[in-house]
Order: sequence, then C-alpha cells, then structure tokens
Amino acid sequence: MMKKTQQKIITLTTDFGNEDNYVACMKGVILSINPFVRIVDNTHNLDSFDVEKAAFNILNMYRYFPAGTIHVAVVDPGVGSRRRSIIVSADEYYFVGPDNGIFGYIIEKCRNVQIYSATKEDYYLPQPSSTFHGRDIFAPVASHLSLKIPPGTFGNKISNYKKLKFIKPSVKNNEMTGKIIYRDKFGNLVTNISSNHAGKISNIKIDNIVIPRLSNTYSDVKKGEFLALIGSSGYLEISVNRGSAADVVNSNADITCLLK
Amino acid sequence: MMKKTQQKIITLTTDFGNEDNYVACMKGVILSINPFVRIVDNTHNLDSFDVEKAAFNILNMYRYFPAGTIHVAVVDPGVGSRRRSIIVSADEYYFVGPDNGIFGYIIEKCRNVQIYSATKEDYYLPQPSSTFHGRDIFAPVASHLSLKIPPGTFGNKISNYKKLKFIKPSVKNNEMTGKIIYRDKFGNLVTNISSNHAGKISNIKIDNIVIPRLSNTYSDVKKGEFLALIGSSGYLEISVNRGSAADVVNSNADITCLLK
Amino acid sequence: MMKKTQQKIITLTTDFGNEDNYVACMKGVILSINPFVRIVDNTHNLDSFDVEKAAFNILNMYRYFPAGTIHVAVVDPGVGSRRRSIIVSADEYYFVGPDNGIFGYIIEKCRNVQIYSATKEDYYLPQPSSTFHGRDIFAPVASHLSLKIPPGTFGNKISNYKKLKFIKPSVKNNEMTGKIIYRDKFGNLVTNISSNHAGKISNIKIDNIVIPRLSNTYSDVKKGEFLALIGSSGYLEISVNRGSAADVVNSNADITCLLK
Repeated sequence: MMKKTQQKIITLTTDFGNEDNYVACMKGVILSINPFVRIVDNTHNLDSFDVEKAAFNILNMYRYFPAGTIHVAVVDPGVGSRRRSIIVSADEYYFVGPDNGIFGYIIEKCRNVQIYSATKEDYYLPQPSSTFHGRDIFAPVASHLSLKIPPGTFGNKISNYKKLKFIKPSVKNNEMTGKIIYRDKFGNLVTNISSNHAGKISNIKIDNIVIPRLSNTYSDVKKGEFLALIGSSGYLEISVNRGSAADVVNSNADITCLLK
Repeated sequence: MMKKTQQKIITLTTDFGNEDNYVACMKGVILSINPFVRIVDNTHNLDSFDVEKAAFNILNMYRYFPAGTIHVAVVDPGVGSRRRSIIVSADEYYFVGPDNGIFGYIIEKCRNVQIYSATKEDYYLPQPSSTFHGRDIFAPVASHLSLKIPPGTFGNKISNYKKLKFIKPSVKNNEMTGKIIYRDKFGNLVTNISSNHAGKISNIKIDNIVIPRLSNTYSDVKKGEFLALIGSSGYLEISVNRGSAADVVNSNADITCLLK
Repeated sequence: MMKKTQQKIITLTTDFGNEDNYVACMKGVILSINPFVRIVDNTHNLDSFDVEKAAFNILNMYRYFPAGTIHVAVVDPGVGSRRRSIIVSADEYYFVGPDNGIFGYIIEKCRNVQIYSATKEDYYLPQPSSTFHGRDIFAPVASHLSLKIPPGTFGNKISNYKKLKFIKPSVKNNEMTGKIIYRDKFGNLVTNISSNHAGKISNIKIDNIVIPRLSNTYSDVKKGEFLALIGSSGYLEISVNRGSAADVVNSNADITCLLK
C-alpha cells in the first residue's frame, strides 16, 4: 500500500481552529516555497494546548499516508519560549513541530528514529514572530524538507528530547487497569489497552458500567446499549450503539478488565 | 460546463466531524493508491447517522463537479453489520458508500443508473476493521475506481437496494402540503416542494407564519422579516432576511401553499 | 518568498460554514472550468454577514500566498440586491467578491489597485440564482480569471466602490485610544493599534485591566495572567497565557495606552 511516490505530501495537525486565517497563512507559506507539494488537513480542532491528545491523534494517522509524507503538528503552548523546533525522521516519514512531546508516541514506537533541531534560520520566514511558529518556522521548514533538502541541513542531530508521559495500563493478578486517552466526535472512548490483549479480555468495567465481553462491531448490541471493542486505532474502546459513551461515562474513571 | 477531464476527483461526504483523524486516514489511503487524484471535502459535519439529510445534501451537490467525479459518502450507522458496500454509476458520475439509502435520491432521479455490490476484497485495505469502512473499504474502492478500473470488477451488478423513504408533498383541492427536509447553516429551511410549482405558489403558511407570495431574494423584504423563495437547490425555502428562520419555526411543522 | 508560479491558486473565504454543500458546489464549479487550479480554504466560519471581520481576516492572509493568487471572499448579506460583483487587482494578487467593503482594507492599503465590475454574464454559470452568487458568479469568474483571462474582459474599470468604515485609534496628549477589531479562536483580542507604535507603548488599559508593558511572547507571564504583545498580524493584541482574554474582557471596551 505505502509505495514511494515522487509527489510530496504535507499534512497539518493543529489546534488553530477553522475560524481564523492561521491555517491558510501556513498553506500560503508552504506553496510559496514548493508550489507542487500537496497539503492535506488532518485536524485543526484539537483541544487548545492538549499535547497528549494531539500525540495520540498523530500516532494513529501517520502510517496511512505514502512513505515520504511530512507530518507537521502544532499544538504549542510554549511558542516563543526556549523549547526547540524539531524534525523527526521515523519509519519512512518526517515529522515537524515543537519539541514538547507531540511526537512522543512516534519516537517511542517507530523504527529508525532520528531527531534534528531545526535551528538554521535560512529555512524560516524572515524575522519570525514569537507567537506564530506554525507560519514562520514549521511551515517553511516542512516545505523546504519537501524539496528533498536532507533533515541534517536544518540543524544538528539531538538525542535529548521532551518525552511524553506514557500512561500504561497496569496488571495485578488477572486484572488489567487502564485509562481513557481519547474521546472522539461520536463519543467513543479510546483506552490505552492495546489490541495485543484482545483475545484475553472479558468483564470490562468502567464507572459502574459492566460489559461482559468484547464485541466485533456496534450493531452487535441494541441501539443505546454499551459495548466494548477493539477500535479502528487498535485500542480497546467503550462505545454506545448509535449513541455517545462520553455523554454518560466519567472519562477520568479507571477501566478494568479480566484477562483470561 | 461539465466537460470531461483526465484528472479524477474524489469528493468526501461524512459525519466524521473535523476533530479526529478519520478523514485524514481516508485521504492517506486514497493517496497511497492513486497519488494523482484530487480530493475535495464536501462536508464532514452531517448529523451523526442522519442518512436522509446526507442523501439530500449529495443530491444538490454532485452535478456541479466534472463528469467522472467519484462521490464517496459515509453516514453509516450500520457499519460492520450485513449492509452492503455499493458503487453506483449514475449520469456520468460514480458514488461509493454503504447501501443504506444514502444514494436514494441519486438512484431515483438520475439517468443510466447501475448499482454494483463492492465485494471484492482485493480492493479493500488488508484486514478491514468492522468499525471504519470509510478508511478500510470505501476509500480504497474509490481510489481504485479513480484508476479507471471498471465498476463491474469490484463485484456483481445488483437490482435490489435499500430505498430512501421519499416524503413527497401532497395536493388536495388547490392546497399543497409539504415538509422541511433540510436546515442550513444560516437557518434557511428547505422544503420538499420543488421549483416545478414556482409559478403557481402563493399564500405560504408554516407554524402560524403566513407569507403572501414568493420573493426573488432575501433583500426583497426588510431585515428580520420572513420570506419564501426558490432556493439555490431548486426547492421552496423559508428564510428570514439576515436572520434565521430555523430559530423561530418548528421544523416538523407542515408547510402549505395555495396553487393558482 | 512570494515568487511567481505557473500554477494558479484560488483561496476561498466565506461565512458558509462547514455543514452544508455550499463550499463544495463552488469547488465543483471552479474545477469544471479549470481542472488544474489549486483551491485552498481560508475559512468558511466567519460570523454570518460580518463584512468588517472578514475584511480584516483577508488583509492579514493574502500576502502569504504566491503572487498571482486569486482570493475569493463571500460574506454577502446583500446577495441578489443591486450591489455589484467586483474583481480587485492589487499588489500582485486578485480578489473576487461582492462590492460591500469586504476588500476595503485591501483597496486602502495595497499598491497598484484597480477595480473592475464583473458584469459579463458569459463568465457566470447559466441562469445564476439570486441567492447563491458564490456558486453562480464568484466561483466561475475566479476560475476563468485563473485561466489568465485579463480582468478587464469581465467588465468595466470602476472608481466608486463601497468603502469600509475604518476605525482608527485616536491620540490625545500622550494617550492613544483604540478598539478591539478581531477575536481569534484562542480568545486573543486584536486591536486596531498597529506595530508602528510598538516601541513607544506602555501602561495598556482595557476594561479595568492594566498591563504595564509589552511582552514578546505568551510565556513572558505566568499561566493565566494577562499580557499585551504585537501579534503575528502586526497589531497590538491582548492575551492571557494559556487562557482566553475574550472570556474576561468586554470586547467593546476602549483600549488605551501611553505613548512614550
């Protein structure tokens, strides 16, 4: 599926919203440097400043794109502070954004990871602002990268980077305890319990709701009923058939399940 | 206007929202199969699971695109159940999505309609999930279709398909009674009374509001006043000049008008 | 940065929202006329009918695109009335939309401004509606313009056009008094006090909040604290570090500052 292609793709993942001109400014900058690159919006409606949710969103999206795709991510509460701007080369993809943990899952889970500090100002817009690095630094860096300028040209390779706090499920006796880490538009609640455990899970409990076994799809239960399944991202999800689990379940509650 | 072109276009119409990575995953899959296809978002903010509204949205959009355009639609409450995945060839367009009525208007109103069951798994992603057919089935099927693989290659032609319940206006003596079938962002209320009746309509009544005659445009009445006109989709619409009819009118109310 | 390119770009700025098919219809029309033009969404979520906010959005976006880009803007409360449809040629860009002030800042601030009334119906869709000029007039005019048809071909040059009411800050003794003219998604409040005064500003007051001096970036103050800085658009902005100034400040309040 993921064959090499000559035409480069840049994806954009931000918390800039769809109301202002911030995303369009980034696209204008990208197209001014490389008029032939293809730009694909992931989402611009991430919760403001929520780096962990952004990181999980990117983890489950990047690999569906052709090898060579450049994924730009800007959820950046520390813009203008001393946090670095980085280029991550991982698997056959590039990632451009702030060094604040947003690529934490990528760095942890991908192969062939190399991280570069994008310090060379020749690849920034002239006189970059201190409040909009998406437009002034990340967009032009990504667009120059799409012209096949090697990542090492943008700055030095680094080994210390901002780590994301991974909340891993814990196991005690035969019980695994995890957390909700993502809530989607439909109110599906994605947990940090991965599909590796799928064959062994039963008796799922969260916030007074008990789900005896895993389902295969939503319509395995009646309309309005709770179910648990391995979602399309490869993690255990809590859902309601044609309804919203998030409207009922406390998303901070622990989730527990028995492992056979 | 609608001349043939070599470059294929795929449009996307879903209820996936703009918050998650679902739409981006579909685009990544499409571009991995055909890096040269052009992808155009229609909307991803359709009401969750509202197949009828989605069907009406598509009816009034498809024909503005060049012949050969592939329209993918995913409002799919039955994902993972036994409902089929279909390709509809109609007029000079293709439509890809679930067999749940979402192409009901298209099948009813277009010429040269042929429907295929897209069963051949060679054109799916490997190991398709049971919860995200947009990414795993419809996106790869549409992208392969954009490579000019004939629709019959994806599966057998079928004649039984899920019909949409068409609510047609009724006429009694000189009075026509219809329904609101779509509410747009501005609060304009689109009815199922088509422009065929435009020359004969007067004395429009809905929910205690009486509008004596059809207007040509919003500014025919004062700011804040109700009006009725044949909207850009070709149906009778109830509007308020620089305001929202939907904020005042009960959208389940019958609409009646005299036919001269 | 803004070098010439052969491939034309059309940007779209509207108040059509992301729920309906209005924007997709415009794109279909554009691609039916010029299948090779690149379309970039600015935003479709401008406040309905708010021409002034739209005008400010466009002012701070247009110049990040390559020379030759065509910016289409449709915030158009007077659609179907006698207001004209215009093409503005300014700097090295084109602008297409209603003559209602939406290009007011562009006409005021750019060089080499020429304005044309787009009256020639050959470049419209056949039988244009009176309610959707975005689809029936502005989209086809912009797409024909992208085929390098000279703007004078679409209609006569005009010199009288609808002006935007510019609210400029006033100065009395050493005190400058301005207004909030834009509120962004993060709750940053953009004023009409430009960066020309940046070196001289201190003692900023708005709605009982006093900010002693300009900051360089958000993290110059603690989380939750107010600050003032020259924003990425080049105007004085009032912000809260990792919070929303708009949630606290009355956006109609005057803003004053001392000029050293």
